[in-house]
Amino acid sequence: MDQRNDLQMYNVRTDLALEARELVSENNPGRLPGVEEESYEDDGIYLTKIKVTTEEGSRAIGKLPGHYVTIEVPKLRNKDSKLQDRVATRFAKEFEQFLADTGVSKTAKVLIVGLGNWNVTPDALGPIVTENVMVTRHYFELMPDQVAPGYRQVSAVSPGVLGITGIETSEIVQGIVEMSKPDLVIAVDALASRALERVNTTIQIADTGINPGSGVGNKRKGITKEVLGVPVIAIGVPTVVFASTIVNSSIEMLISHFKKETEATDKILGMLDTLQENERLMLVKEVLNPLGHDLVVTPKEIDEFIEDIANIIASGLNAALHEAIDSDNVAAYTH
Amino acid sequence: MDQRNDLQMYNVRTDLALEARELVSENNPGRLPGVEEESYEDDGIYLTKIKVTTEEGSRAIGKLPGHYVTIEVPKLRNKDSKLQDRVATRFAKEFEQFLADTGVSKTAKVLIVGLGNWNVTPDALGPIVTENVMVTRHYFELMPDQVAPGYRQVSAVSPGVLGITGIETSEIVQGIVEMSKPDLVIAVDALASRALERVNTTIQIADTGINPGSGVGNKRKGITKEVLGVPVIAIGVPTVVFASTIVNSSIEMLISHFKKETEATDKILGMLDTLQENERLMLVKEVLNPLGHDLVVTPKEIDEFIEDIANIIASGLNAALHEAIDSDNVAAYTH
Amino acid sequence: MDQRNDLQMYNVRTDLALEARELVSENNPGRLPGVEEESYEDDGIYLTKIKVTTEEGSRAIGKLPGHYVTIEVPKLRNKDSKLQDRVATRFAKEFEQFLADTGVSKTAKVLIVGLGNWNVTPDALGPIVTENVMVTRHYFELMPDQVAPGYRQVSAVSPGVLGITGIETSEIVQGIVEMSKPDLVIAVDALASRALERVNTTIQIADTGINPGSGVGNKRKGITKEVLGVPVIAIGVPTVVFASTIVNSSIEMLISHFKKETEATDKILGMLDTLQENERLMLVKEVLNPLGHDLVVTPKEIDEFIEDIANIIASGLNAALHEAIDSDNVAAYTH
Amino acid sequence: MDQRNDLQMYNVRTDLALEARELVSENNPGRLPGVEEESYEDDGIYLTKIKVTTEEGSRAIGKLPGHYVTIEVPKLRNKDSKLQDRVATRFAKEFEQFLADTGVSKTAKVLIVGLGNWNVTPDALGPIVTENVMVTRHYFELMPDQVAPGYRQVSAVSPGVLGITGIETSEIVQGIVEMSKPDLVIAVDALASRALERVNTTIQIADTGINPGSGVGNKRKGITKEVLGVPVIAIGVPTVVFASTIVNSSIEMLISHFKKETEATDKILGMLDTLQENERLMLVKEVLNPLGHDLVVTPKEIDEFIEDIANIIASGLNAALHEAIDSDNVAAYTH
Repeated sequence: MDQRNDLQMYNVRTDLALEARELVSENNPGRLPGVEEESYEDDGIYLTKIKVTTEEGSRAIGKLPGHYVTIEVPKLRNKDSKLQDRVATRFAKEFEQFLADTGVSKTAKVLIVGLGNWNVTPDALGPIVTENVMVTRHYFELMPDQVAPGYRQVSAVSPGVLGITGIETSEIVQGIVEMSKPDLVIAVDALASRALERVNTTIQIADTGINPGSGVGNKRKGITKEVLGVPVIAIGVPTVVFASTIVNSSIEMLISHFKKETEATDKILGMLDTLQENERLMLVKEVLNPLGHDLVVTPKEIDEFIEDIANIIASGLNAALHEAIDSDNVAAYTH
Repeated sequence: MDQRNDLQMYNVRTDLALEARELVSENNPGRLPGVEEESYEDDGIYLTKIKVTTEEGSRAIGKLPGHYVTIEVPKLRNKDSKLQDRVATRFAKEFEQFLADTGVSKTAKVLIVGLGNWNVTPDALGPIVTENVMVTRHYFELMPDQVAPGYRQVSAVSPGVLGITGIETSEIVQGIVEMSKPDLVIAVDALASRALERVNTTIQIADTGINPGSGVGNKRKGITKEVLGVPVIAIGVPTVVFASTIVNSSIEMLISHFKKETEATDKILGMLDTLQENERLMLVKEVLNPLGHDLVVTPKEIDEFIEDIANIIASGLNAALHEAIDSDNVAAYTH
Repeated sequence: MDQRNDLQMYNVRTDLALEARELVSENNPGRLPGVEEESYEDDGIYLTKIKVTTEEGSRAIGKLPGHYVTIEVPKLRNKDSKLQDRVATRFAKEFEQFLADTGVSKTAKVLIVGLGNWNVTPDALGPIVTENVMVTRHYFELMPDQVAPGYRQVSAVSPGVLGITGIETSEIVQGIVEMSKPDLVIAVDALASRALERVNTTIQIADTGINPGSGVGNKRKGITKEVLGVPVIAIGVPTVVFASTIVNSSIEMLISHFKKETEATDKILGMLDTLQENERLMLVKEVLNPLGHDLVVTPKEIDEFIEDIANIIASGLNAALHEAIDSDNVAAYTH
Repeated sequence: MDQRNDLQMYNVRTDLALEARELVSENNPGRLPGVEEESYEDDGIYLTKIKVTTEEGSRAIGKLPGHYVTIEVPKLRNKDSKLQDRVATRFAKEFEQFLADTGVSKTAKVLIVGLGNWNVTPDALGPIVTENVMVTRHYFELMPDQVAPGYRQVSAVSPGVLGITGIETSEIVQGIVEMSKPDLVIAVDALASRALERVNTTIQIADTGINPGSGVGNKRKGITKEVLGVPVIAIGVPTVVFASTIVNSSIEMLISHFKKETEATDKILGMLDTLQENERLMLVKEVLNPLGHDLVVTPKEIDEFIEDIANIIASGLNAALHEAIDSDNVAAYTH
């Protein structure tokens, strides 16, 4: 997020295209040129597909041109294993469709890259997914005649983070791609959301790769088609929220509450509405100071949430990537 | 916190006597009858000692009569190992003094109880401390002649939580106390704070034991002298904050900001000040709803923070409990 | 194993009644008075039921009078999840039968005790089982009207080991039993075998409780009906072998090889046969010395083996203890 | 070990040059052409330096031409933290000398590669070392002006194993080397020994890199100067022993016992001595069969041993690689 965009004015950190679009819409109701959106629900699973088709649309919402699919399951944190299986199945189907839409062939060789720091629970999503997906590439290399039909070549790595390796993650992935020559990279990463409710209940699929500055850890170089030479599909799950975002949202909602509830208070409304942006940011900073102002927070139950959603993604990927694995019974292939 | 108290009116969940006192003072400036307080600083380490001496004082701040010592080290999360050593040494000295003040003899047998769920990182403080303290009781039992002078009998258990064992933690501890007959129980627990800045930077020592409803996990029965028959000293570290508390604090600070900053807005101030309590709670609820309203959050780096502060407490306890261990070099006795 | 018995003469450490019986039989072929045995196979699962009915039988094989059921599955380490499910189902049925034979009622309240040290992988079987069994006692206590029929009260604890707690494990369990008042204790423990092939492929069920000196860790007091006042059923899995046992077995087999293979060597046979016991032990010691003579070893893959067999036992216990859980589909109830 | 060598005749699996040399010497006393050796002791720390200088020497002991330094500390498993510090200091000094002897400059950029499977405790040595060494390369890249003098560029990765990634470890390392351009690779790996006593008490340093088939995991391609284009120094610690090796050693020692002890038994000696190699191997196989014949074993306490020796290597590497770190106080730089 180096270039200035509308989102920054609202000082809200989000890695979800869905939230970026929501935020802009809140302040600029009406259709956004260059941004198409459709959404539907299936018994507690909410799907939203956003296409950013122009540079104008990209600038408006601060996300790169591309396709973004978001699966939201508000009740996902309730430890309901039947719902988890349904979400894995749905994710598998959507991901398979996404691959088809992106023009990825059924025999394309895939490298799954689990981004993030395995020592920081809310950042460990990628590495946990990597540990749980079915890896097959070595069978194709070592005993190609014995691989059953319906499987494709899948490899998987967790490259670590800069603070652990001393090497840009992007460079490590680049080196591995050059040696192992996949046709597609799938990068799994933990994200920041602006809403606690979306943490560990939402999965985003995007064909834009992983861009600098996104995700829970720090990245300075992208993991994209430009860098790697092969397409990169990113799978992200918000696992953290900036504390400043919570405060900011609180203030927004307080203002909108007064607007709705207190008829007579024209004066306040005027004052709040006309608060200059910089005043507003100073206000948020002031409020934040005693709260520990650049803290990033995650739900208390993060250990279990991460484990559950990583299993959903791993089993969904297994079903989506291998025709031999039935997408109606995906859970059996992960432990 | 079953009985109604002033704190509840402000709907803020805190396990720290220090914060309870602050909250009441914010709304009722001036001396609180039945609550004595002194505080001082030593190069970045802030000490506050609160004595709740009467029932009136207890009701006012919603904490049981007793002694509370709070050690705050705002920079503790900066990974500065020299500061960590200083804090361990300071904690050891304060704890030793606390034992003396509470009338605990130098040969009293101690059982350390690590409360909380080891599978939930922000609740794992107690079990991690238990794993790291020096346990000596079995040497006294098995080869009493060979124990060097300067050590006392220390045992340590992590009883788990109700959801893991199916048994009230309090009952498990009671059973172990009856069989192993310590003279003192030290209970270590993770707490909830009202301020993110205090999370993993603050240690509270109290002679009131562990009371129902306190801490990160759920407890329905206390771990107190009444239940166990021996004194219970509680050591607590706030590791989580209720999201509702962050929102609530944001609103409070917004109000106080307007009070200070905007001279002319008498009308607003009046309105905000006279917001009825129930309106105010409804407002907080409304604001919270989209944030996931009963979520409890913890900093992203909780794995490392918990490890660090557990080491401080374990090494501090080793120095405070055994005369043979020099409180100026406490770190060497834990790994 | 404080009292002298025939087994000790062969200097082989085993916690399995099956192996104790084998060892004695090797040297004293023919029926053993006071020891009854039956065995059968079901497609790769071998069952042996031994009843030690008299003191004489007990002395002969060095195991307490009681019932011992052993389930051996030589191929269990092959990572075959279908076989694992079959073993869990078989274990559930055998355990249910064992409960019935022991006169345990279908509503008897059960406390599962996971013995062993969770920091030592081959000794962590008990704690891992405890973490994975379904715990229900608190539902009966907190909302008895809402518990579905077909479940019984189950609680579960991992008391730790003497070196971690400073308290005899037996005393901790005794305290918890006195407070929580179960009708039956099921104690799960890692054992020592004399044969590497049995490590992590064998489950023993016994109604004799846990006796001093058995298992991977050190125990000086038993966990038995005599101590606790309620029956104790022990579930054990060999996870280690003494290196001395491997050497000893090698020598035994070398001798028996020469006996079979080399007709003409009467002299050698005579010499080997008449090797005095103490010469023999010295020989083993001498051979062992450069190998690290009291080392206890475990297979390299112990992490995975322990996880797998703990899951089998946990899901088998769930099915055996609750009528509502179908023993043909036990795996679904554990993760 | 694809090419036939003398060692194979004795059917003993070892990754230590020291043991390979011992084995050959046992059977062929006297100086070995092409193999130079010197050894000395320093208060419980035993050093052996072996140079394999010719192809003939290499064939004789089945190890590549190169320099091998072995540090043996029989008492290392006794949990003596002072001894551990001494070993770390000694290892640091020997490694520094080894670097100098190998012609590595003081500013050479180093990539530390932690080989092995982090999910298999006895194979996790490399990954644990990697997590604990000081990584500095990113500081040089991001803020070169602020790096204090006395440090060099160090990066570190754990590439995983074939079964986890689907990619040859050698290829992953090659890709990372090509992108990050170190001047030297240090590869840390867990090894197999022929003697339980050497497990977790011995460190080998070699300038031959990592060769196919060595180590605890399976490797089919080397990690060598030929493959990577930069020198590779291997650090190895034996963490496992093949069960067959224990049996084999037992038989060897039994034979040598009879040779020494029983004067009159010419006949036996003759028979044992003249046992043909193939008879002998069959004998070992026969003996092994009931023991689970291709099992690899590790000490029960492997979790703790691995942690301790990984800390020694990590702190030793920190001191050896950075002049600013004092080799007399190495422990302070690792946690």
